[in-house]
Amino acid sequence: MALRTTLVKRVLSGNRGHISALGGQASSRTLPKRAIRLSVESSWPRSLALPRCYPAVTSGHVASRPLCSTPSRCAAKLTADSYPNLKRDDRFAELTPEHVSHLKNILRHESAVIDGVSGAVEGDIEPFNEDWMHKYKGQCRLVLKPGSTEEVSEVLRYCNENLLAVVPQGGNTGLVGGSVPVFDEIVINMSRMNSIHSFDEISGALVLDAGCILEVADHYVAEKGHIFPLDLGAKGSCHVGGNVSTNAGGLRLLRYGSLHGSVLGMEAVLPDGTILNDMCTLRKNNTGYDLKQLFIGAEGTLGIITKLVIQCAQRSSAVNVALFGLESYEKAQRAFKEAKGQLSEILSAFELMDGTSQRLVHQVRGGSKPLEGDHPFYCLVETSGSNSEHDYEKLEKFLEDVMSNEVIADGVVAQDATQIKNLWSWREGITECIGLWGGTYKYDVSIPLSEMYSIVPDVKARLSEAGLLGETDSYPVVDVVGYGHMGDSNLHLNIAVRRYDKEVERVLEPYVYEWIEKRQGSISAEHGLGLAKKNYIGYSRNDTMLRLMKQIKALYDPSGIMNPYKYI
Amino acid sequence: MALRTTLVKRVLSGNRGHISALGGQASSRTLPKRAIRLSVESSWPRSLALPRCYPAVTSGHVASRPLCSTPSRCAAKLTADSYPNLKRDDRFAELTPEHVSHLKNILRHESAVIDGVSGAVEGDIEPFNEDWMHKYKGQCRLVLKPGSTEEVSEVLRYCNENLLAVVPQGGNTGLVGGSVPVFDEIVINMSRMNSIHSFDEISGALVLDAGCILEVADHYVAEKGHIFPLDLGAKGSCHVGGNVSTNAGGLRLLRYGSLHGSVLGMEAVLPDGTILNDMCTLRKNNTGYDLKQLFIGAEGTLGIITKLVIQCAQRSSAVNVALFGLESYEKAQRAFKEAKGQLSEILSAFELMDGTSQRLVHQVRGGSKPLEGDHPFYCLVETSGSNSEHDYEKLEKFLEDVMSNEVIADGVVAQDATQIKNLWSWREGITECIGLWGGTYKYDVSIPLSEMYSIVPDVKARLSEAGLLGETDSYPVVDVVGYGHMGDSNLHLNIAVRRYDKEVERVLEPYVYEWIEKRQGSISAEHGLGLAKKNYIGYSRNDTMLRLMKQIKALYDPSGIMNPYKYI
Repeated sequence: MALRTTLVKRVLSGNRGHISALGGQASSRTLPKRAIRLSVESSWPRSLALPRCYPAVTSGHVASRPLCSTPSRCAAKLTADSYPNLKRDDRFAELTPEHVSHLKNILRHESAVIDGVSGAVEGDIEPFNEDWMHKYKGQCRLVLKPGSTEEVSEVLRYCNENLLAVVPQGGNTGLVGGSVPVFDEIVINMSRMNSIHSFDEISGALVLDAGCILEVADHYVAEKGHIFPLDLGAKGSCHVGGNVSTNAGGLRLLRYGSLHGSVLGMEAVLPDGTILNDMCTLRKNNTGYDLKQLFIGAEGTLGIITKLVIQCAQRSSAVNVALFGLESYEKAQRAFKEAKGQLSEILSAFELMDGTSQRLVHQVRGGSKPLEGDHPFYCLVETSGSNSEHDYEKLEKFLEDVMSNEVIADGVVAQDATQIKNLWSWREGITECIGLWGGTYKYDVSIPLSEMYSIVPDVKARLSEAGLLGETDSYPVVDVVGYGHMGDSNLHLNIAVRRYDKEVERVLEPYVYEWIEKRQGSISAEHGLGLAKKNYIGYSRNDTMLRLMKQIKALYDPSGIMNPYKYI
Repeated sequence: MALRTTLVKRVLSGNRGHISALGGQASSRTLPKRAIRLSVESSWPRSLALPRCYPAVTSGHVASRPLCSTPSRCAAKLTADSYPNLKRDDRFAELTPEHVSHLKNILRHESAVIDGVSGAVEGDIEPFNEDWMHKYKGQCRLVLKPGSTEEVSEVLRYCNENLLAVVPQGGNTGLVGGSVPVFDEIVINMSRMNSIHSFDEISGALVLDAGCILEVADHYVAEKGHIFPLDLGAKGSCHVGGNVSTNAGGLRLLRYGSLHGSVLGMEAVLPDGTILNDMCTLRKNNTGYDLKQLFIGAEGTLGIITKLVIQCAQRSSAVNVALFGLESYEKAQRAFKEAKGQLSEILSAFELMDGTSQRLVHQVRGGSKPLEGDHPFYCLVETSGSNSEHDYEKLEKFLEDVMSNEVIADGVVAQDATQIKNLWSWREGITECIGLWGGTYKYDVSIPLSEMYSIVPDVKARLSEAGLLGETDSYPVVDVVGYGHMGDSNLHLNIAVRRYDKEVERVLEPYVYEWIEKRQGSISAEHGLGLAKKNYIGYSRNDTMLRLMKQIKALYDPSGIMNPYKYI
């Protein structure tokens, strides 16, 4: 213990200006103590224009393809082929030139329509037919980009009357195939509705179009000293409308709560063209049922969100980050409890990474590690507040306490923005690094904290017993890792594989879902259902809940034109 | 300016141990700087067993009766008489001894039924028929107190099949007549379902019955270092189920957000007996429509909430309070903006009181005022955090800045729990004090901050022009005051009157509602609709929204037995 505590002790008792912060190498610079803003490198797509070939990952039951080296190898299989049991619903009409002509008249602008019915537009339409992971590929032949709520209303009313199925689409950064067509559904892409209408600097109420990019919105309010209450890797591409439609969780939920609390107002269009206008900019409004809540997390199956009012909090000028190693998951829980108690109002992230995940990241990256030696678990804690000195003092005190009580075994505190970025990269880099062996089976789940991590050794034991996990190429499975947002009981269970293997899948499923069901967990913490998890919702919801959900779907979308084949 | 800043300057620059904090009287005690917990005297009912005769107030369009001196004078008029246009719905069955016998069999326990059908139980049934303000009085002859979700389900199914109308009732502390019958509806009182089932000290998830009293729940989690995310004057009587059913806002919304964010799970019973079980204890669960959201703020018109899971935050060990005077509402807005910026994560309340309200409180109470002289506006700012020294330092810095920039004219900081209580009493005592002249017309509204206060001088001018406001007994109106939760854009517009006067009402309405409608405000910020505001919802919601709300009502309660004659 004495040896392992050296580093953090040095950090905690040393002159702040000369702290050895990362990997034990003493810094020769005198780092001024100042407010630093978190900036984390993202492994997500920044925009649709970038090369769309990312480390292959899966979210749910389908294994990823190995990391491809050229875009051509990334071409997705048609969803209709991957899911042979899915059949096109014959109730839906086939698009005719008359339909297209009518819809073009509604939108007026030439650039607002990509028409694959009247002519060949293969390349132009592809990005709208396919998800960024190249796992899902639809056969849409018409993309509409309405420029106003009235246009969305006219389009939907026409589609509803003519039984033309549609897929609402934001930045198309989803992980479960929710934002691309399955067959020939019309894509209604919201990118042209991207204005920020107003921001009240006193109340923090931001009024904006659904097609605004999350990062643009966050930068906009940042300039006015505020923060968008949501942050996630895809922020450079995703739309706020898509975020709300999928009830995105992300990195700031621990601090700013869920979108059910921070969406103050909404405008949405129902399939029959009805405009639901609830653009309240106020925090308190108890005048009737809060219908907008149904659209938060409905994944475009009830209507299309066109405008939003978001409550933005004051932005913290000071951010501090620490990383520490622990001997057991039980100690990680104790550390989290202690962090909640001591850091309380400034705690903005508490992330868990197991030793295996960090070993795999190190294997890929090489170089020096933030902490000496290996630990069974690592936690990253971030504080955000209005006074850097105060926050640093609280963080120091917290680390001293958990060190002296032997809750943590070792730890470091970042001294500047670069070090913060470096520490975060050991958490944020996991997805990318473990994908490099070939592919990953990914499960994004919520499990009560006391049992959250147990699923990892259980799954590992099961794969080992089945003779599927080993160190040589003859075994499909490389290893099983667990990491995630501990502050939100949200675990990412990842199975790193060398190759796709039906046997691995059979050992994993339905075992994983049953395991989660037994603990009253959620099979989808934040990614949503989409196409990937449509058939698995029964593990997290009982039959009565499903019946009541279908009742709501039937109420708002009796013809079922909104995002068919998905969700529930 | 120099003179007026004396007090706060002394506070800000003096030895903290010898600060003259309230009314300029120097304290001779050396007050240790320590964590202090807020404890505010409430003017609300603590329990139904207390004498039920409070200062008369109204919430909405009906004027109050003058303050009564004996309980007998407080006997309420039958709602059916106060609202002669309301007629009993003939579709509903009249209660028969057979109905009662069947319902008794469901509940089994003798104490679970108050049966006014088979025998005389006048006194026993009265508290369930009447609200605490004695404004609404129903004619219920049967009160049921189910002891389990299954009993609620059986009762509702039977009532639904037999077209027996019901009123769900929690602590019966509402302000709009939502929790008492209008005619002979059966009261389903939830007080017997009052268990706390579990609390996860690591995640903060509290699982409890709907009939738990808010204060009991808050004390329970306080012992474990946590805080219930809601606080309001009626906490000693109100049920958490009622709080969620009415989407209560209260004092902690600024810090902990709305119940739409902090209710993690819910169990509710629909009119047909269906048990909606969504008792998720996790913060993230994206598996289908979030149906529980519809029941938050539905005021018992869709079903009965039976159990809840509430996300409780870490309780702050340190609380600081300051009160200051300002020259204008414009400066109050600047002070709020500055407080948000500088106090950020520790800001837990920012309350506004106008000079008139403070003058009336002083007129009633006498004694010394917290600040010398009179100011057109006063603000109370509260901070809650984990480190008293840090918070005090931030508060001092904030006050220094707003003083030196002449945003505030004068101010004091409380030095201990007694002083905190005293400062809060100048805000919390308004309702009681202004009611002493005879009665109060009360409007609980949300208005965008920039215009929030303007309604007060506008209403005052209107009443003056009509010759209704003056200093002698010949004028019905004493004065018009405005105060409220500035942090939530929530204003309490109060018209203090010497007597009830139809002419005052005619001058006030629909003027007040139209004024709010023009500013896209809400006619009910937190009190809800109930019976009082059922007919005024159109000022805050358009026809489409109302149609969609009625659609939801018809979906869940096609026979309309749930809390009829109210809401929408």
